Amino acid sequence: MDVMGKFIEKYVPLINRELDRVTRGFPENVYNAARHLLLAGGKRVRPSLTLTYARMLGGEEGEDSALPFAVSVELLHNFTLIHDDIMDKDEFRRGVKTVHTVFGENIAILAGDLLFAISFENALSNEKVQPENRVKAVNLLSQASRIVAEGQALDVSFEESWDVKLEDYLDMIYRKTGALIEAATGMGALAVTQNDGIVRNARIYGKNIGIAFQLRDDVLGVFGDPSKTGKPIYSDIARAKKTVLILYALSNLNIDESERLKEILEGKTTDIELLKEAAGLIEKSGAKEYALNLAYKYSKDAIEMVEKTNAVDEDARKALVEFAKFVVEREK
Amino acid sequence: MDVMGKFIEKYVPLINRELDRVTRGFPENVYNAARHLLLAGGKRVRPSLTLTYARMLGGEEGEDSALPFAVSVELLHNFTLIHDDIMDKDEFRRGVKTVHTVFGENIAILAGDLLFAISFENALSNEKVQPENRVKAVNLLSQASRIVAEGQALDVSFEESWDVKLEDYLDMIYRKTGALIEAATGMGALAVTQNDGIVRNARIYGKNIGIAFQLRDDVLGVFGDPSKTGKPIYSDIARAKKTVLILYALSNLNIDESERLKEILEGKTTDIELLKEAAGLIEKSGAKEYALNLAYKYSKDAIEMVEKTNAVDEDARKALVEFAKFVVEREK
Repeated sequence: MDVMGKFIEKYVPLINRELDRVTRGFPENVYNAARHLLLAGGKRVRPSLTLTYARMLGGEEGEDSALPFAVSVELLHNFTLIHDDIMDKDEFRRGVKTVHTVFGENIAILAGDLLFAISFENALSNEKVQPENRVKAVNLLSQASRIVAEGQALDVSFEESWDVKLEDYLDMIYRKTGALIEAATGMGALAVTQNDGIVRNARIYGKNIGIAFQLRDDVLGVFGDPSKTGKPIYSDIARAKKTVLILYALSNLNIDESERLKEILEGKTTDIELLKEAAGLIEKSGAKEYALNLAYKYSKDAIEMVEKTNAVDEDARKALVEFAKFVVEREK
Repeated sequence: MDVMGKFIEKYVPLINRELDRVTRGFPENVYNAARHLLLAGGKRVRPSLTLTYARMLGGEEGEDSALPFAVSVELLHNFTLIHDDIMDKDEFRRGVKTVHTVFGENIAILAGDLLFAISFENALSNEKVQPENRVKAVNLLSQASRIVAEGQALDVSFEESWDVKLEDYLDMIYRKTGALIEAATGMGALAVTQNDGIVRNARIYGKNIGIAFQLRDDVLGVFGDPSKTGKPIYSDIARAKKTVLILYALSNLNIDESERLKEILEGKTTDIELLKEAAGLIEKSGAKEYALNLAYKYSKDAIEMVEKTNAVDEDARKALVEFAKFVVEREK
């Protein structure tokens, strides 16, 4: 990620400065809760994609116009993380205690709501973008927040069901992960252009990146190297997460093997021999190749979108192509 | 409320039809949760104010342009109610079980987030209003949602403190109640006019109505007739709610009386004799007159705003004046 890495390196301090600026207010308690996770770090990938896309289309000026949109995307992302952590009862994120663990559930719910509101207020106040495009950009943001909520609801319902179809799973990860990245790159385009086709391509790029990213995540969740991913070995198997790998294996192994895999998953075991056996069954089913091929397909479709776009800044285009490759090749 | 009553009667079916239309989607579970409270009724006062204000300024055409904004205000209001009920652990509202009681806390958090998102998406899609005014209107909505979250956080912090100043309390009720009504009437104006002065007056009208409404609510919470208000007798005393009456009494009674009142409140008693004694102390302090005078002042300032506005529809103006009087005279 040489080219994209340099862009991100340049963008992170800009984004962090703005995040710090727009999340100050009264009463302190709820603003501290809203800032807790936000200022604990984070790779700022989504807002960097907004800025890079805008730079590709409009150079430095485009990048500049897109900054408030980029910041709003990161605010919205953090709002969803705060509420997700409450729902999942997670205690740690980004190496710090989650917001509800530190401030209590009530203030955490409010802190999420506050970031949601600030996200919109901030994007709507982006005076560098004409009102018509501002309306479109914020509409993309509100659609994304609706779709993310739908995705989270689907994810919750999948936990209780063994009858999840692969296409339902792909729809769910589009909603949970793809929709906001679609908004990120779409808003980057809307900071620069009124051309509907270019905006459409930007959205498709982001959507595909999001799905490819999640598919690669699923592969790493079973076959990843714990020393690189930072996750426990076979973590998705131990938690019986219905990922693309597990769903594919369950429906493509023979009946006995499929039953055996389901049995191990239902046990939510930590026994390394059982986990290994399950991973073996998943590998045998061809799920890994299936997931990787699918991820490559989404990545390729994303790359196609930026390759056919007229770029003002070629480095930004290179960075976006590089990033689309990175998401499916990363080891962590 | 003869004139306003007729407007509301006309508006409720329009608003309900739109609320029903814009809250359909997949997955069913979270949409059902989002619709649960929304379709259980509600007086639709806020969206009716949006429509009446737009009608006053722009006649039937204005009313028509304002409908999506009105619906968004009601959606946002219901989002705040769902999250508030989780935080307050309330089990009933509008005569039905609260959303989290029926669907569980996780789905209730998501259902609130979903209404929040739909509120914005719906307002941003109001094609009858030019983009510039749409941006301003939705910005008012996002400001209101931020301020409401701040107000709720303040309210939570007041519960644990006996050192709440009257001005802090007034600021809190502006945030919790006034800000959204300010957005309601401001958005009604923004559906019709680009005149900043008129929009400003519309916002002041709504803000004052909201504060006056809450002050009257505080009076009814101690001195209201339970057969009319539907609340238990002396309900605010029993719950030791820090309302304007109680705060005024605590700081205006002599030290012994003030200590005694605080003692009864801290006991969170249901003993009718003790509640009566507390109500007597509050009455003696002059808190009731103070609160009513203050409410009248806010109501009067609201009326002034619509009286100095050029009305296209005189009935709508009459309705708004009437409503400003109603909020401070109502018995329920």
